[in-house]
Amino acid sequence: MPKAAIVMGSVSDLDVVKPTIDILKKFDVEVEARVISAHRTPQMAHDFANNAIENNIEVIICAAGKAAHLGGVIAAYTPLPVIGLPVKSSTMDGLDSLLSMVQMPSGIPVACVAINGGLNAGLLAIQILSVKYPNLMKKMQDYKNSMAEKIKSDDEKLQKELN
Amino acid sequence: MPKAAIVMGSVSDLDVVKPTIDILKKFDVEVEARVISAHRTPQMAHDFANNAIENNIEVIICAAGKAAHLGGVIAAYTPLPVIGLPVKSSTMDGLDSLLSMVQMPSGIPVACVAINGGLNAGLLAIQILSVKYPNLMKKMQDYKNSMAEKIKSDDEKLQKELN
Amino acid sequence: MPKAAIVMGSVSDLDVVKPTIDILKKFDVEVEARVISAHRTPQMAHDFANNAIENNIEVIICAAGKAAHLGGVIAAYTPLPVIGLPVKSSTMDGLDSLLSMVQMPSGIPVACVAINGGLNAGLLAIQILSVKYPNLMKKMQDYKNSMAEKIKSDDEKLQKELN
Amino acid sequence: MPKAAIVMGSVSDLDVVKPTIDILKKFDVEVEARVISAHRTPQMAHDFANNAIENNIEVIICAAGKAAHLGGVIAAYTPLPVIGLPVKSSTMDGLDSLLSMVQMPSGIPVACVAINGGLNAGLLAIQILSVKYPNLMKKMQDYKNSMAEKIKSDDEKLQKELN
Amino acid sequence: MPKAAIVMGSVSDLDVVKPTIDILKKFDVEVEARVISAHRTPQMAHDFANNAIENNIEVIICAAGKAAHLGGVIAAYTPLPVIGLPVKSSTMDGLDSLLSMVQMPSGIPVACVAINGGLNAGLLAIQILSVKYPNLMKKMQDYKNSMAEKIKSDDEKLQKELN
Amino acid sequence: MPKAAIVMGSVSDLDVVKPTIDILKKFDVEVEARVISAHRTPQMAHDFANNAIENNIEVIICAAGKAAHLGGVIAAYTPLPVIGLPVKSSTMDGLDSLLSMVQMPSGIPVACVAINGGLNAGLLAIQILSVKYPNLMKKMQDYKNSMAEKIKSDDEKLQKELN
Amino acid sequence: MPKAAIVMGSVSDLDVVKPTIDILKKFDVEVEARVISAHRTPQMAHDFANNAIENNIEVIICAAGKAAHLGGVIAAYTPLPVIGLPVKSSTMDGLDSLLSMVQMPSGIPVACVAINGGLNAGLLAIQILSVKYPNLMKKMQDYKNSMAEKIKSDDEKLQKELN
Amino acid sequence: MPKAAIVMGSVSDLDVVKPTIDILKKFDVEVEARVISAHRTPQMAHDFANNAIENNIEVIICAAGKAAHLGGVIAAYTPLPVIGLPVKSSTMDGLDSLLSMVQMPSGIPVACVAINGGLNAGLLAIQILSVKYPNLMKKMQDYKNSMAEKIKSDDEKLQKELN
Repeated sequence: MPKAAIVMGSVSDLDVVKPTIDILKKFDVEVEARVISAHRTPQMAHDFANNAIENNIEVIICAAGKAAHLGGVIAAYTPLPVIGLPVKSSTMDGLDSLLSMVQMPSGIPVACVAINGGLNAGLLAIQILSVKYPNLMKKMQDYKNSMAEKIKSDDEKLQKELN
Repeated sequence: MPKAAIVMGSVSDLDVVKPTIDILKKFDVEVEARVISAHRTPQMAHDFANNAIENNIEVIICAAGKAAHLGGVIAAYTPLPVIGLPVKSSTMDGLDSLLSMVQMPSGIPVACVAINGGLNAGLLAIQILSVKYPNLMKKMQDYKNSMAEKIKSDDEKLQKELN
Repeated sequence: MPKAAIVMGSVSDLDVVKPTIDILKKFDVEVEARVISAHRTPQMAHDFANNAIENNIEVIICAAGKAAHLGGVIAAYTPLPVIGLPVKSSTMDGLDSLLSMVQMPSGIPVACVAINGGLNAGLLAIQILSVKYPNLMKKMQDYKNSMAEKIKSDDEKLQKELN
Repeated sequence: MPKAAIVMGSVSDLDVVKPTIDILKKFDVEVEARVISAHRTPQMAHDFANNAIENNIEVIICAAGKAAHLGGVIAAYTPLPVIGLPVKSSTMDGLDSLLSMVQMPSGIPVACVAINGGLNAGLLAIQILSVKYPNLMKKMQDYKNSMAEKIKSDDEKLQKELN
Repeated sequence: MPKAAIVMGSVSDLDVVKPTIDILKKFDVEVEARVISAHRTPQMAHDFANNAIENNIEVIICAAGKAAHLGGVIAAYTPLPVIGLPVKSSTMDGLDSLLSMVQMPSGIPVACVAINGGLNAGLLAIQILSVKYPNLMKKMQDYKNSMAEKIKSDDEKLQKELN
Repeated sequence: MPKAAIVMGSVSDLDVVKPTIDILKKFDVEVEARVISAHRTPQMAHDFANNAIENNIEVIICAAGKAAHLGGVIAAYTPLPVIGLPVKSSTMDGLDSLLSMVQMPSGIPVACVAINGGLNAGLLAIQILSVKYPNLMKKMQDYKNSMAEKIKSDDEKLQKELN
Repeated sequence: MPKAAIVMGSVSDLDVVKPTIDILKKFDVEVEARVISAHRTPQMAHDFANNAIENNIEVIICAAGKAAHLGGVIAAYTPLPVIGLPVKSSTMDGLDSLLSMVQMPSGIPVACVAINGGLNAGLLAIQILSVKYPNLMKKMQDYKNSMAEKIKSDDEKLQKELN
Repeated sequence: MPKAAIVMGSVSDLDVVKPTIDILKKFDVEVEARVISAHRTPQMAHDFANNAIENNIEVIICAAGKAAHLGGVIAAYTPLPVIGLPVKSSTMDGLDSLLSMVQMPSGIPVACVAINGGLNAGLLAIQILSVKYPNLMKKMQDYKNSMAEKIKSDDEKLQKELN
């Protein structure tokens, strides 16, 4: 069974991370959700990242705000693909989190998604896992189709109302 | 054999993309490098993305500058993971490319790396492929070790010189 | 009869687009309003843009938020003038949508208006159509005159109150 | 014969405006190129805009840098469609010009293209004129096809070299 | 009697401009408050600026939001000192208004104050008038003293509470 | 007994500064809290900074918003370490305060913390004092441990709920 | 004879300030040019500002880069009008200097001109002085006329070349 | 003897860090200069920070560019005061480094100086050490005096040349 981990820097990030967890469970991906702070619990971050492979984790999502170092700190300790989910905080409208996550130096990439893009962090994890698990790719194609159906239905409704 | 595609929006992006190609080849990943413009050749983009799976492509890197739509356009047509490589152009210092790539709407993620982060785009592709190909993960760990050795050697040299 | 199309990337953009539709109808321009997502329904976008001319559409307005690719995607498939209406989303205060729309690469322009500038998107469409339809230009001049009257009336009221 | 005007705020903007003039001439659009400053020659701006229609001008391109008011000032005096071409100056990387042009208040739109996007300003003028002049739309389609051919040729060359 | 004019681009700017009017009246400066739009009533702007000197106006404050051209348009037509008061609108947090006002090209300065800095716009006008009217400079010094007294009183209160 | 001073530019900054005062008192650092405006009471700022050493102050925290000059003005008059605490005001989301505080010219540093980072300003002061007072360093280590315990407890609770 | 002072924070700002000095001399305004650092020589700044009125200075221009506090520091000590000239430094493209100068808190305005806008700082000083000295206003009108002539000549030359 | 450590994320940061080392040595502070990457050598960063106190280090300066996590990573492992020196890289003009360093979450402060502010990082370290070492504070006061002398000499020279 495919397995993803979601690490958030603070329990206050849970609202942003909830759609990540939900979509992974919907796709039958095993989820390990954790609260680990790169700055307050660096040893936990180190241990978590170092043991991720033997804990069967295949991709790691890191959600954090402000100076969002969590993705970089985890990526430093593991060769697994790391997804960065920048969380908007009360100042700077998320630009600080975004730049702290996406502008990683050469050698240690973090795969960054949109600010507060919890759903997309989950979908990206599924796409990465689907390289190995063909049934996930099929489900992803179904999911894309259902999104398209939703848009088409919205379009039809709008045309009835407005035109 | 693992296979990645690199699509650039213009042949002028080749300097940024060269390290991507080199690192993938160094890791023995098969590379299909293409010039496809989301705006000037939308049909090519459509065809490329639609046929990617049957062409054995497992991950796609998209490099583009300014209003960098290429990653989103390719991701719209395929369930494969898509990596966005924002290219700095002559104005706005890359912020336009970065936001155009990373701020994807819910449902269609693009995995964004740093502005002009060609090497990291390649390494991220390798990490994604390594979920399926265990020998890539081993090579990636070796690569991380060699980067660490380089830093340690720089550190020793500096300490001799300065302290 | 002159005809414009308004495409929004999501039905949630309707509030921003409502003034666009209203002003076009007020000027007796035929309006085709659609919900089409560049990323979730790329085929619909392709079909819509490819058939726009034979559907008698003469100018297309595209409203979208975040990584607002819709204008570029539509413009890629049609020689018709395309107006971009960037929609402010919950982060980045609209800067992401603006840069994604306005910073189009050479060869494929999108005519961008202000963030959330729904009324102006409609007025620009009318000005473009008025190149062909002289009565629209006359109406536009009347509209400008009525805006001026409104300001003059506000000015007189203020002077009575404050001076 | 279709006719466009290009107004630049300073003769120093000529480098950015040159591709605009060239593409318009290539499409056999009559071009009136002017140097008019919104701030140093406001009366000239007023006279130019007021007389534009009777001088057979059908669309106006305004190029300016820094606090780029030229587009707004011209648009205030004429119902013709006005295209804004923001010019990058020595500070702020063009962001000042872009925001000054694109963020027009309700009622008076300016159709903004990319910073230093001289070619696109011309192409947008052609697309606007093509609403009235069908042969321009045909030429624009040919132009799009030739851009696509160029990309395809770049793509083939690259594949020969790299793959 | 010294005289200042306050021009706002829209009656919706009145909240920001109210402290400007109040402080001027408090200093016994005659105030002419107007609603004039650079874009919707360009002729009014022209007439107002052209006649300002013979109407005994000695300094002009211009308040506007978004692409805030009003200051530049007024300054173009008069040699009087023009103060720019950028108004925050619903997007871009006032950065658009600020850059549109402050980044004026060489030859035509606008004296810009803080975003939504209505009080300061009035105080700056008073300081400019005080070059000619010595009693205004004396009042300004008194005003500065009273501000200092307020801070000192706040400081004493705080020290009693907290220390 | 170690002693820190906290200067705020306006009594309206008290909400941001309250956690600074609280944490210092919790660590048994003597606190002198003041309201001093760099612009409205420059003489007070001068006197305060000039007398700081003989008043036994060992580190100074300056909190201010907008053009936040307070830190620089205090640092100009004293060799003591000065911490800058940028306060978010109603426009620009704190970017103005941050840049005004952190971008100090060569020769006169200000130690800047995060926008509205009141707690961190206090902790940084404690860390600076702990260079001299070893028991503060021990308390700081305890504080770090307690933060880690809080994260671990959040993590355990989350795992119980979600996994 | 009218008199202006120009204070620069560092002798390295002289290139930006040179056009300020030149235009003031050209208008026969007496100029006192000074190097005074708000941070390295706060006492000099205090003395200069405190004595400005009795030294017959009527308006003060302050040029500084990075955290450009000079204008605020001078304005704190004098009721004279203070013009801020933000200087672009090697990072942040002048945005730091601009925000540090323009975003002054309520009560102490600084009249900000464009980044590196040395000429405009001088012209604004002349406009302020012209409130008192009518012959300066006449010269300013002449200056505006000569700028207009220059544009008209550029326009005629361009039309000969291009049309 | 007081002791400071300077850690740079890459040997390419040495140019920015050189003035830091020089000023510390000039003040007779013992300097340990290191190259340690938060991402490529996380274990080195951990070991360095964990052993800093027993290696007699009293303050740590961290210089890094892009997603500059180094300061946060070091601060996570030690209660010593950590100074962040953001280094400008080839994109984003240093804004990414600045925000990554200064926007630290509550609990773990980093004392941030200006982008590329190598001299100030060193001076801040000296000010922090001077809390404990009184002779450093005396030297710092001398240093401030000599800076003031330099400005006064520049001022006198300028006045001779220009006035």
